[in-house]
Amino acid sequence: MTQNFDAMRQQSRDDVRAHIRCGAYSDHTSGLAQGFLQANLVILDKEFALDFMRFCQRNPKPCPLVGVTDTGSPFMKTLGADIDIRSDVPSYNIYRNGVLTNSIGDINDLWTDRMVGFALGCSFTFEHALISAGIAVWHMEHNRTVPMFRTTIETTPAGPFSGPMVVSMRAIDRDKIDLVRDISAQFPLAHGKPVHCGNPADIGIADIAVPDWGDPSPVDAGQVPVFWACGVTPQAAIMRAKPPLCITHKPGQMLITDVPEDAEVPIVTTAA
Amino acid sequence: MTQNFDAMRQQSRDDVRAHIRCGAYSDHTSGLAQGFLQANLVILDKEFALDFMRFCQRNPKPCPLVGVTDTGSPFMKTLGADIDIRSDVPSYNIYRNGVLTNSIGDINDLWTDRMVGFALGCSFTFEHALISAGIAVWHMEHNRTVPMFRTTIETTPAGPFSGPMVVSMRAIDRDKIDLVRDISAQFPLAHGKPVHCGNPADIGIADIAVPDWGDPSPVDAGQVPVFWACGVTPQAAIMRAKPPLCITHKPGQMLITDVPEDAEVPIVTTAA
Repeated sequence: MTQNFDAMRQQSRDDVRAHIRCGAYSDHTSGLAQGFLQANLVILDKEFALDFMRFCQRNPKPCPLVGVTDTGSPFMKTLGADIDIRSDVPSYNIYRNGVLTNSIGDINDLWTDRMVGFALGCSFTFEHALISAGIAVWHMEHNRTVPMFRTTIETTPAGPFSGPMVVSMRAIDRDKIDLVRDISAQFPLAHGKPVHCGNPADIGIADIAVPDWGDPSPVDAGQVPVFWACGVTPQAAIMRAKPPLCITHKPGQMLITDVPEDAEVPIVTTAA
Repeated sequence: MTQNFDAMRQQSRDDVRAHIRCGAYSDHTSGLAQGFLQANLVILDKEFALDFMRFCQRNPKPCPLVGVTDTGSPFMKTLGADIDIRSDVPSYNIYRNGVLTNSIGDINDLWTDRMVGFALGCSFTFEHALISAGIAVWHMEHNRTVPMFRTTIETTPAGPFSGPMVVSMRAIDRDKIDLVRDISAQFPLAHGKPVHCGNPADIGIADIAVPDWGDPSPVDAGQVPVFWACGVTPQAAIMRAKPPLCITHKPGQMLITDVPEDAEVPIVTTAA
Protein backbone atom coordinates (compact mmCIF):
# COMPACT_ATOMS: atom_id res chain seq x y z
CA MET A 1 0.00 0.00 0.00
CA THR A 2 1.37 3.39 -0.94
CA GLN A 3 2.19 5.54 2.08
CA ASN A 4 2.02 9.31 2.30
CA PHE A 5 4.43 11.58 4.14
CA ASP A 6 2.24 12.24 7.17
CA ALA A 7 1.73 8.51 7.72
CA MET A 8 5.48 7.91 7.45
CA ARG A 9 6.29 10.56 10.05
CA GLN A 10 4.64 8.41 12.70
CA GLN A 11 6.71 5.33 11.87
CA SER A 12 9.91 3.89 13.24
CA ARG A 13 13.16 3.97 11.31
CA ASP A 14 12.92 0.28 10.45
CA ASP A 15 9.32 0.66 9.28
CA VAL A 16 10.13 3.70 7.16
CA ARG A 17 12.98 1.82 5.49
CA ALA A 18 10.81 -1.26 4.98
CA HIS A 19 8.16 0.82 3.20
CA ILE A 20 10.85 2.41 1.03
CA ARG A 21 12.44 -0.96 0.24
CA CYS A 22 9.18 -2.50 -0.97
CA GLY A 23 8.33 0.55 -3.05
CA ALA A 24 5.43 1.74 -0.90
CA TYR A 25 6.96 5.17 -0.24
CA SER A 26 8.64 7.32 -2.88
CA ASP A 27 8.74 10.88 -1.61
CA HIS A 28 11.24 13.01 0.33
CA THR A 29 12.71 11.81 3.63
CA SER A 30 13.22 15.15 5.40
CA GLY A 31 11.74 14.86 8.89
CA LEU A 32 11.46 11.06 8.78
CA ALA A 33 13.25 8.70 11.22
CA GLN A 34 14.38 11.69 13.24
CA GLY A 35 17.61 11.47 15.19
CA PHE A 36 19.40 9.34 12.60
CA LEU A 37 21.91 10.31 9.93
CA GLN A 38 20.55 10.48 6.38
CA ALA A 39 22.84 10.35 3.39
CA ASN A 40 23.16 11.28 -0.25
CA LEU A 41 23.97 8.27 -2.43
CA VAL A 42 26.24 7.95 -5.48
CA ILE A 43 26.90 4.63 -7.26
CA LEU A 44 29.65 4.31 -9.85
CA ASP A 45 31.62 1.66 -11.71
CA LYS A 46 34.83 0.71 -9.88
CA GLU A 47 36.82 2.34 -12.69
CA PHE A 48 35.72 5.73 -11.30
CA ALA A 49 35.75 4.86 -7.60
CA LEU A 50 39.23 6.05 -6.61
CA ASP A 51 38.88 9.39 -8.40
CA PHE A 52 35.44 9.89 -6.93
CA MET A 53 36.76 9.23 -3.42
CA ARG A 54 39.51 11.75 -4.09
CA PHE A 55 36.87 14.23 -5.25
CA CYS A 56 34.99 13.76 -1.98
CA GLN A 57 38.15 14.07 0.11
CA ARG A 58 39.11 17.29 -1.69
CA ASN A 59 35.63 18.77 -1.39
CA PRO A 60 34.57 17.79 2.13
CA LYS A 61 31.98 20.54 2.52
CA PRO A 62 29.75 19.51 -0.42
CA CYS A 63 30.85 15.84 -0.32
CA PRO A 64 31.37 14.66 3.29
CA LEU A 65 31.96 10.95 2.79
CA VAL A 66 30.21 8.89 5.48
CA GLY A 67 30.24 5.42 3.92
CA VAL A 68 31.64 3.34 1.05
CA THR A 69 30.65 -0.19 0.06
CA ASP A 70 33.03 -2.94 -0.90
CA THR A 71 33.25 -3.28 -4.69
CA GLY A 72 30.23 -5.27 -5.87
CA SER A 73 28.53 -5.28 -2.48
CA PRO A 74 25.18 -3.46 -2.24
CA PHE A 75 25.35 -3.46 1.57
CA MET A 76 26.47 -0.32 3.38
CA LYS A 77 27.56 -2.26 6.47
CA THR A 78 29.18 0.59 8.35
CA LEU A 79 25.94 2.61 8.30
CA GLY A 80 23.48 -0.08 9.34
CA ALA A 81 22.88 -3.75 9.97
CA ASP A 82 20.54 -4.14 7.00
CA ILE A 83 21.04 -1.40 4.43
CA ASP A 84 20.71 -2.46 0.79
CA ILE A 85 21.54 0.48 -1.45
CA ARG A 86 19.71 -1.17 -4.38
CA SER A 87 16.33 -0.52 -2.80
CA ASP A 88 16.64 1.62 0.32
CA VAL A 89 16.22 5.12 -1.07
CA PRO A 90 12.73 6.17 -2.25
CA SER A 91 13.74 7.08 -5.82
CA TYR A 92 16.94 6.81 -7.86
CA ASN A 93 18.20 9.10 -10.63
CA ILE A 94 19.87 7.27 -13.53
CA TYR A 95 22.59 9.17 -15.39
CA ARG A 96 23.93 7.71 -18.65
CA ASN A 97 26.97 9.48 -20.12
CA GLY A 98 26.26 12.38 -17.80
CA VAL A 99 22.62 12.81 -18.80
CA LEU A 100 19.75 12.22 -16.37
CA THR A 101 17.66 9.72 -18.31
CA ASN A 102 15.06 8.60 -15.79
CA SER A 103 14.09 8.08 -12.15
CA ILE A 104 13.15 4.66 -10.78
CA GLY A 105 12.10 3.11 -7.50
CA ASP A 106 14.86 0.49 -7.16
CA ILE A 107 17.99 -0.51 -9.04
CA ASN A 108 18.00 -4.27 -8.56
CA ASP A 109 18.04 -4.80 -12.32
CA LEU A 110 20.93 -2.39 -12.86
CA TRP A 111 23.25 -3.61 -10.09
CA THR A 112 26.52 -5.30 -11.11
CA ASP A 113 29.51 -6.68 -9.25
CA ARG A 114 31.62 -3.79 -10.58
CA MET A 115 29.69 -1.14 -8.65
CA VAL A 116 30.75 0.88 -5.61
CA GLY A 117 28.30 2.88 -3.51
CA PHE A 118 29.18 6.12 -1.71
CA ALA A 119 27.14 7.75 1.04
CA LEU A 120 27.62 11.47 1.68
CA GLY A 121 26.39 13.40 4.71
CA CYS A 122 23.28 15.52 4.31
CA SER A 123 21.92 18.80 5.59
CA PHE A 124 19.01 17.15 7.41
CA THR A 125 21.38 16.61 10.34
CA PHE A 126 21.99 20.27 11.02
CA GLU A 127 18.40 21.18 10.12
CA HIS A 128 17.24 19.10 13.06
CA ALA A 129 19.73 20.97 15.24
CA LEU A 130 18.41 24.31 13.93
CA ILE A 131 14.83 23.35 14.68
CA SER A 132 15.83 22.19 18.17
CA ALA A 133 17.32 25.67 18.69
CA GLY A 134 14.00 27.28 17.73
CA ILE A 135 15.01 28.36 14.22
CA ALA A 136 12.27 28.01 11.62
CA VAL A 137 13.15 26.10 8.44
CA TRP A 138 10.51 27.01 5.85
CA HIS A 139 10.75 24.02 3.51
CA MET A 140 10.40 21.60 6.41
CA GLU A 141 7.39 23.43 7.84
CA HIS A 142 5.77 23.33 4.40
CA ASN A 143 6.71 19.78 3.43
CA ARG A 144 8.86 20.81 0.46
CA THR A 145 12.37 19.93 -0.74
CA VAL A 146 15.02 22.53 0.05
CA PRO A 147 15.90 24.76 -2.96
CA MET A 148 19.29 23.93 -4.50
CA PHE A 149 21.36 26.01 -6.93
CA ARG A 150 24.46 25.67 -9.10
CA THR A 151 27.02 28.36 -8.16
CA THR A 152 30.19 29.92 -9.56
CA ILE A 153 32.17 28.42 -6.65
CA GLU A 154 34.47 25.83 -8.22
CA THR A 155 35.15 22.46 -6.61
CA THR A 156 38.69 21.05 -6.37
CA PRO A 157 38.97 18.57 -9.26
CA ALA A 158 39.95 14.89 -9.05
CA GLY A 159 40.38 12.87 -12.24
CA PRO A 160 37.29 13.45 -14.41
CA PHE A 161 35.30 15.03 -11.56
CA SER A 162 35.12 18.83 -11.37
CA GLY A 163 32.70 21.68 -11.76
CA PRO A 164 30.53 24.03 -9.79
CA MET A 165 29.55 23.60 -6.17
CA VAL A 166 25.81 23.13 -5.65
CA VAL A 167 24.37 24.84 -2.58
CA SER A 168 21.13 24.61 -0.65
CA MET A 169 19.40 27.79 0.59
CA ARG A 170 17.54 28.49 3.82
CA ALA A 171 16.14 31.94 4.64
CA ILE A 172 17.26 32.91 8.15
CA ASP A 173 16.21 35.87 10.33
CA ARG A 174 19.01 38.43 10.27
CA ASP A 175 19.57 38.31 14.04
CA LYS A 176 19.96 34.51 13.98
CA ILE A 177 22.76 34.26 11.41
CA ASP A 178 25.59 33.89 13.94
CA LEU A 179 23.68 31.26 15.88
CA VAL A 180 22.94 29.32 12.70
CA ARG A 181 26.60 29.47 11.70
CA ASP A 182 27.73 28.19 15.11
CA ILE A 183 25.21 25.34 15.13
CA SER A 184 26.01 24.11 11.64
CA ALA A 185 29.77 24.35 12.29
CA GLN A 186 29.30 21.51 14.77
CA PHE A 187 28.39 19.11 11.96
CA PRO A 188 31.40 18.75 9.64
CA LEU A 189 29.88 15.56 8.18
CA ALA A 190 26.71 17.50 7.30
CA HIS A 191 28.32 20.33 5.27
CA GLY A 192 29.51 22.37 8.28
CA LYS A 193 29.30 26.17 8.23
CA PRO A 194 27.52 28.06 5.42
CA VAL A 195 29.62 28.86 2.36
CA HIS A 196 27.81 32.17 1.78
CA CYS A 197 25.30 34.51 3.43
CA GLY A 198 23.57 37.31 1.58
CA ASN A 199 23.43 38.34 -2.08
CA PRO A 200 22.77 35.27 -4.26
CA ALA A 201 24.46 36.97 -7.24
CA ASP A 202 27.79 36.91 -5.36
CA ILE A 203 27.94 33.16 -5.96
CA GLY A 204 26.37 33.23 -9.40
CA ILE A 205 22.72 32.59 -8.58
CA ALA A 206 20.63 34.64 -11.00
CA ASP A 207 17.17 34.11 -9.52
CA ILE A 208 16.60 32.88 -5.97
CA ALA A 209 13.03 32.00 -6.94
CA VAL A 210 14.13 29.48 -9.59
CA PRO A 211 16.19 26.67 -8.01
CA ASP A 212 18.01 24.12 -10.17
CA TRP A 213 16.73 21.34 -7.90
CA GLY A 214 14.04 21.24 -5.18
CA ASP A 215 11.23 23.69 -4.52
CA PRO A 216 11.32 27.52 -4.35
CA SER A 217 11.38 28.89 -0.81
CA PRO A 218 10.56 32.52 0.13
CA VAL A 219 13.03 34.98 1.66
CA ASP A 220 10.93 37.33 3.81
CA ALA A 221 11.71 40.89 4.89
CA GLY A 222 14.21 40.75 7.74
CA GLN A 223 15.61 37.46 6.46
CA VAL A 224 18.89 36.70 4.72
CA PRO A 225 19.41 33.84 2.24
CA VAL A 226 22.02 31.50 3.73
CA PHE A 227 23.77 28.97 1.50
CA TRP A 228 25.35 25.67 2.48
CA ALA A 229 27.43 23.32 0.36
CA CYS A 230 25.09 20.59 -0.89
CA GLY A 231 25.36 16.85 -1.48
CA VAL A 232 23.90 17.28 -4.96
CA THR A 233 27.29 18.74 -5.99
CA PRO A 234 28.56 15.31 -7.12
CA GLN A 235 25.54 14.96 -9.41
CA ALA A 236 26.69 18.14 -11.19
CA ALA A 237 30.26 16.76 -11.32
CA ILE A 238 28.98 13.49 -12.76
CA MET A 239 27.06 15.34 -15.46
CA ARG A 240 30.42 16.80 -16.56
CA ALA A 241 32.48 13.60 -16.09
CA LYS A 242 29.99 11.61 -18.21
CA PRO A 243 30.61 8.09 -16.87
CA PRO A 244 28.65 5.51 -18.90
CA LEU A 245 26.38 4.86 -15.90
CA CYS A 246 25.93 6.60 -12.57
CA ILE A 247 23.09 6.12 -10.12
CA THR A 248 22.20 8.59 -7.38
CA HIS A 249 19.35 9.16 -4.98
CA LYS A 250 16.73 11.61 -6.24
CA PRO A 251 17.46 14.92 -4.49
CA GLY A 252 15.60 15.15 -1.18
CA GLN A 253 14.97 11.39 -1.05
CA MET A 254 17.85 10.14 1.04
CA LEU A 255 19.32 6.94 2.46
CA ILE A 256 18.21 6.56 6.10
CA THR A 257 20.98 5.04 8.24
CA ASP A 258 21.22 3.50 11.71
CA VAL A 259 23.87 6.02 12.81
CA PRO A 260 22.67 8.53 15.43
CA GLU A 261 22.94 12.12 14.22
CA ASP A 262 25.15 13.02 17.18
CA ALA A 263 27.58 10.10 16.71
CA GLU A 264 31.25 11.12 16.78
CA VAL A 265 31.98 9.01 13.68
CA PRO A 266 29.57 7.61 11.05
CA ILE A 267 30.11 3.97 11.93
CA VAL A 268 27.59 1.63 13.55
CA THR A 269 29.68 -1.48 13.88
CA THR A 270 33.04 -3.07 13.22
CA ALA A 271 31.64 -4.64 10.07
CA ALA A 272 33.37 -7.98 9.59
CA MET B 1 74.53 21.49 7.61
CA THR B 2 72.72 19.17 9.97
CA GLN B 3 70.20 20.97 12.18
CA ASN B 4 69.16 20.04 15.71
CA PHE B 5 65.69 20.30 17.20
CA ASP B 6 66.26 23.48 19.19
CA ALA B 7 67.60 25.28 16.12
CA MET B 8 64.57 24.12 14.11
CA ARG B 9 62.09 25.43 16.68
CA GLN B 10 63.15 28.97 15.85
CA GLN B 11 62.55 28.59 12.13
CA SER B 12 59.63 29.34 9.87
CA ARG B 13 57.51 26.63 8.34
CA ASP B 14 59.10 27.08 4.92
CA ASP B 15 62.60 26.95 6.41
CA VAL B 16 61.82 23.84 8.45
CA ARG B 17 60.52 22.08 5.34
CA ALA B 18 63.51 23.24 3.28
CA HIS B 19 65.91 21.74 5.85
CA ILE B 20 63.93 18.50 5.85
CA ARG B 21 63.81 18.40 2.04
CA CYS B 22 67.57 18.72 1.65
CA GLY B 23 68.24 16.12 4.34
CA ALA B 24 69.61 18.55 6.95
CA TYR B 25 67.01 17.61 9.59
CA SER B 26 65.94 14.06 10.39
CA ASP B 27 64.32 14.07 13.82
CA HIS B 28 60.77 14.43 15.16
CA THR B 29 58.56 17.36 14.14
CA SER B 30 56.46 17.77 17.30
CA GLY B 31 56.50 21.45 18.25
CA LEU B 32 57.90 22.62 14.91
CA ALA B 33 56.09 25.05 12.56
CA GLN B 34 53.45 25.59 15.21
CA GLY B 35 49.95 26.49 14.13
CA PHE B 36 49.98 24.30 11.03
CA LEU B 37 48.53 20.87 10.44
CA GLN B 38 51.02 18.01 10.46
CA ALA B 39 50.19 14.66 8.89
CA ASN B 40 51.03 10.98 8.91
CA LEU B 41 52.03 9.72 5.46
CA VAL B 42 51.30 6.41 3.72
CA ILE B 43 52.37 5.67 0.14
CA LEU B 44 51.04 2.61 -1.71
CA ASP B 45 50.80 1.20 -5.20
CA LYS B 46 47.56 2.21 -6.95
CA GLU B 47 46.44 -1.41 -6.77
CA PHE B 48 45.87 -0.90 -3.03
CA ALA B 49 44.69 2.71 -3.10
CA LEU B 50 40.92 2.22 -3.17
CA ASP B 51 40.93 -0.35 -0.37
CA PHE B 52 43.24 1.82 1.69
CA MET B 53 40.94 4.83 1.26
CA ARG B 54 38.04 2.63 2.35
CA PHE B 55 40.08 1.56 5.39
CA CYS B 56 40.61 5.22 6.30
CA GLN B 57 36.94 6.10 5.77
CA ARG B 58 35.85 3.18 7.96
CA ASN B 59 38.35 3.99 10.71
CA PRO B 60 38.22 7.77 10.89
CA LYS B 61 39.54 8.02 14.45
CA PRO B 62 42.92 6.35 13.80
CA CYS B 63 43.00 7.27 10.08
CA PRO B 64 41.52 10.75 9.49
CA LEU B 65 42.25 11.28 5.82
CA VAL B 66 43.34 14.88 5.15
CA GLY B 67 44.93 14.54 1.71
CA VAL B 68 45.40 12.19 -1.26
CA THR B 69 47.67 12.69 -4.26
CA ASP B 70 46.76 11.99 -7.84
CA THR B 71 48.12 8.61 -8.94
CA GLY B 72 51.79 9.04 -9.81
CA SER B 73 52.00 12.61 -8.53
CA PRO B 74 54.32 13.23 -5.56
CA PHE B 75 52.72 16.62 -4.90
CA MET B 76 50.13 16.96 -2.14
CA LYS B 77 48.56 20.02 -3.72
CA THR B 78 45.59 20.37 -1.41
CA LEU B 79 47.86 20.63 1.65
CA GLY B 80 50.40 23.13 0.36
CA ALA B 81 51.75 25.03 -2.62
CA ASP B 82 55.05 23.14 -2.65
CA ILE B 83 54.80 19.81 -0.85
CA ASP B 84 56.79 16.94 -2.37
CA ILE B 85 56.07 13.76 -0.46
CA ARG B 86 59.27 12.16 -1.80
CA SER B 87 61.44 14.37 0.40
CA ASP B 88 59.36 16.44 2.79
CA VAL B 89 59.24 14.18 5.85
CA PRO B 90 62.44 13.81 7.89
CA SER B 91 62.66 10.00 7.66
CA TYR B 92 60.72 7.31 5.82
CA ASN B 93 60.00 3.74 6.88
CA ILE B 94 60.18 1.20 4.03
CA TYR B 95 57.95 -1.87 4.34
CA ARG B 96 58.45 -4.75 1.91
CA ASN B 97 55.84 -7.51 2.04
CA GLY B 98 54.72 -6.11 5.39
CA VAL B 99 58.18 -6.11 6.97
CA LEU B 100 59.93 -2.90 8.01
CA THR B 101 63.23 -3.26 6.19
CA ASN B 102 64.89 0.15 6.63
CA SER B 103 64.48 3.87 7.23
CA ILE B 104 65.78 6.45 4.75
CA GLY B 105 65.87 10.22 4.37
CA ASP B 106 64.12 10.53 1.02
CA ILE B 107 62.37 8.25 -1.46
CA ASN B 108 63.27 9.86 -4.76
CA ASP B 109 64.82 6.60 -5.97
CA LEU B 110 61.78 4.53 -5.00
CA TRP B 111 59.05 6.73 -6.46
CA THR B 112 57.07 5.39 -9.44
CA ASP B 113 54.12 6.65 -11.47
CA ARG B 114 51.96 3.92 -9.92
CA MET B 115 52.14 5.41 -6.41
CA VAL B 116 49.46 7.20 -4.41
CA GLY B 117 50.22 9.19 -1.26
CA PHE B 118 47.81 9.53 1.66
CA ALA B 119 48.09 12.12 4.46
CA LEU B 120 46.33 11.38 7.76
CA GLY B 121 45.69 13.87 10.56
CA CYS B 122 47.94 13.75 13.57
CA SER B 123 47.70 14.28 17.31
CA PHE B 124 50.04 17.28 17.28
CA THR B 125 47.00 19.41 16.42
CA PHE B 126 45.13 18.70 19.64
CA GLU B 127 48.37 18.65 21.68
CA HIS B 128 48.86 22.30 20.80
CA ALA B 129 45.30 22.97 21.93
CA LEU B 130 45.97 21.10 25.21
CA ILE B 131 49.09 23.15 25.86
CA SER B 132 47.22 26.36 25.09
CA ALA B 133 44.70 25.31 27.75
CA GLY B 134 47.51 24.90 30.31
CA ILE B 135 47.64 21.10 30.23
CA ALA B 136 51.14 19.64 30.47
CA VAL B 137 52.14 17.11 27.80
CA TRP B 138 55.18 15.24 29.14
CA HIS B 139 56.77 14.00 25.91
CA MET B 140 56.66 17.49 24.40
CA GLU B 141 58.20 19.10 27.48
CA HIS B 142 60.97 16.48 27.36
CA ASN B 143 61.55 16.46 23.61
CA ARG B 144 60.53 12.82 23.15
CA THR B 145 58.18 10.99 20.78
CA VAL B 146 54.77 10.11 22.24
CA PRO B 147 54.51 6.44 23.36
CA MET B 148 52.37 4.31 21.03
CA PHE B 149 50.89 0.85 21.66
CA ARG B 150 49.11 -1.89 19.75
CA THR B 151 45.72 -2.64 21.37
CA THR B 152 43.02 -5.30 21.29
CA ILE B 153 40.60 -2.79 19.74
CA GLU B 154 39.93 -4.06 16.21
CA THR B 155 39.71 -1.75 13.22
CA THR B 156 36.93 -2.12 10.64
CA PRO B 157 38.51 -4.02 7.75
CA ALA B 158 38.63 -2.97 4.08
CA GLY B 159 40.05 -5.37 1.50
CA PRO B 160 43.43 -6.59 2.79
CA PHE B 161 43.63 -3.92 5.51
CA SER B 162 42.62 -4.90 9.05
CA GLY B 163 44.05 -5.47 12.48
CA PRO B 164 44.53 -3.77 15.81
CA MET B 165 44.13 -0.07 16.48
CA VAL B 166 47.34 1.61 17.59
CA VAL B 167 46.92 4.27 20.28
CA SER B 168 49.09 7.05 21.67
CA MET B 169 49.21 7.67 25.43
CA ARG B 170 49.38 10.90 27.41
CA ALA B 171 49.29 10.97 31.21
CA ILE B 172 46.67 13.53 32.32
CA ASP B 173 45.88 14.86 35.80
CA ARG B 174 42.70 13.19 37.02
CA ASP B 175 40.80 16.47 37.40
CA LYS B 176 41.60 17.50 33.83
CA ILE B 177 40.20 14.43 32.04
CA ASP B 178 36.87 16.01 31.11
CA LEU B 179 38.57 19.15 29.84
CA VAL B 180 41.00 17.11 27.76
CA ARG B 181 38.13 15.09 26.29
CA ASP B 182 36.21 18.24 25.37
CA ILE B 183 39.24 19.88 23.76
CA SER B 184 40.24 16.89 21.67
CA ALA B 185 36.62 16.30 20.57
CA GLN B 186 36.91 19.58 18.66
CA PHE B 187 39.49 18.04 16.30
CA PRO B 188 37.84 15.18 14.39
CA LEU B 189 40.66 15.31 11.80
CA ALA B 190 43.20 14.83 14.61
CA HIS B 191 41.77 11.64 16.17
CA GLY B 192 38.97 13.37 18.14
CA LYS B 193 38.06 12.20 21.62
CA PRO B 194 40.16 9.59 23.48
CA VAL B 195 39.24 5.95 22.81
CA HIS B 196 40.09 4.92 26.40
CA CYS B 197 40.96 6.42 29.78
CA GLY B 198 42.40 4.37 32.64
CA ASN B 199 43.60 0.78 32.90
CA PRO B 200 45.91 -0.04 29.96
CA ALA B 201 45.08 -3.75 30.30
CA ASP B 202 41.47 -3.01 29.33
CA ILE B 203 42.66 -2.42 25.76
CA GLY B 204 45.34 -5.10 25.77
CA ILE B 205 48.40 -3.09 26.76
CA ALA B 206 50.56 -5.32 28.97
CA ASP B 207 53.18 -2.80 30.09
CA ILE B 208 52.68 0.96 29.87
CA ALA B 209 56.45 1.41 30.26
CA VAL B 210 57.23 -0.52 27.06
CA PRO B 211 55.64 1.18 24.04
CA ASP B 212 55.62 -0.50 20.62
CA TRP B 213 56.69 2.81 19.01
CA GLY B 214 58.02 6.07 20.48
CA ASP B 215 59.52 6.72 23.90
CA PRO B 216 58.27 5.65 27.34
CA SER B 217 56.42 8.40 29.24
CA PRO B 218 55.74 8.35 33.01
CA VAL B 219 52.27 8.24 34.60
CA ASP B 220 52.59 10.06 37.92
CA ALA B 221 50.45 9.69 41.04
CA GLY B 222 47.20 11.57 40.48
CA GLN B 223 47.44 11.05 36.74
CA VAL B 224 45.45 8.74 34.45
CA PRO B 225 46.80 7.27 31.21
CA VAL B 226 44.61 8.57 28.39
CA PHE B 227 44.67 6.85 25.00
CA TRP B 228 43.89 8.32 21.61
CA ALA B 229 43.55 6.52 18.27
CA CYS B 230 46.89 6.93 16.47
CA GLY B 231 47.94 7.49 12.88
CA VAL B 232 50.44 4.64 13.17
CA THR B 233 47.44 2.27 12.99
CA PRO B 234 47.77 1.95 9.18
CA GLN B 235 51.40 0.86 9.60
CA ALA B 236 50.14 -2.07 11.69
CA ALA B 237 47.47 -2.80 9.05
CA ILE B 238 50.09 -2.71 6.31
CA MET B 239 52.26 -5.17 8.20
CA ARG B 240 49.30 -7.57 8.01
CA ALA B 241 48.25 -6.77 4.44
CA LYS B 242 51.81 -7.33 3.18
CA PRO B 243 51.80 -5.20 0.02
CA PRO B 244 55.05 -5.66 -1.95
CA LEU B 245 56.08 -2.10 -1.10
CA CYS B 246 54.69 0.51 1.28
CA ILE B 247 56.38 3.70 2.40
CA THR B 248 55.38 5.66 5.49
CA HIS B 249 56.80 8.49 7.58
CA LYS B 250 58.87 7.34 10.54
CA PRO B 251 56.59 7.67 13.59
CA GLY B 252 56.90 11.14 15.13
CA GLN B 253 58.51 12.62 12.00
CA MET B 254 55.54 14.05 10.16
CA LEU B 255 54.63 15.90 6.97
CA ILE B 256 54.32 19.64 7.75
CA THR B 257 51.52 21.24 5.73
CA ASP B 258 50.43 24.80 4.90
CA VAL B 259 46.95 24.23 6.38
CA PRO B 260 46.27 26.18 9.60
CA GLU B 261 45.44 23.87 12.51
CA ASP B 262 42.12 25.62 13.05
CA ALA B 263 41.02 25.41 9.38
CA GLU B 264 37.48 24.10 8.92
CA VAL B 265 38.64 21.74 6.16
CA PRO B 266 42.16 20.49 5.31
CA ILE B 267 42.41 22.28 1.97
CA VAL B 268 44.68 25.20 1.11
CA THR B 269 43.64 25.85 -2.44
CA THR B 270 41.42 24.78 -5.28
CA ALA B 271 44.30 22.80 -6.77
CA ALA B 272 43.96 22.90 -10.53
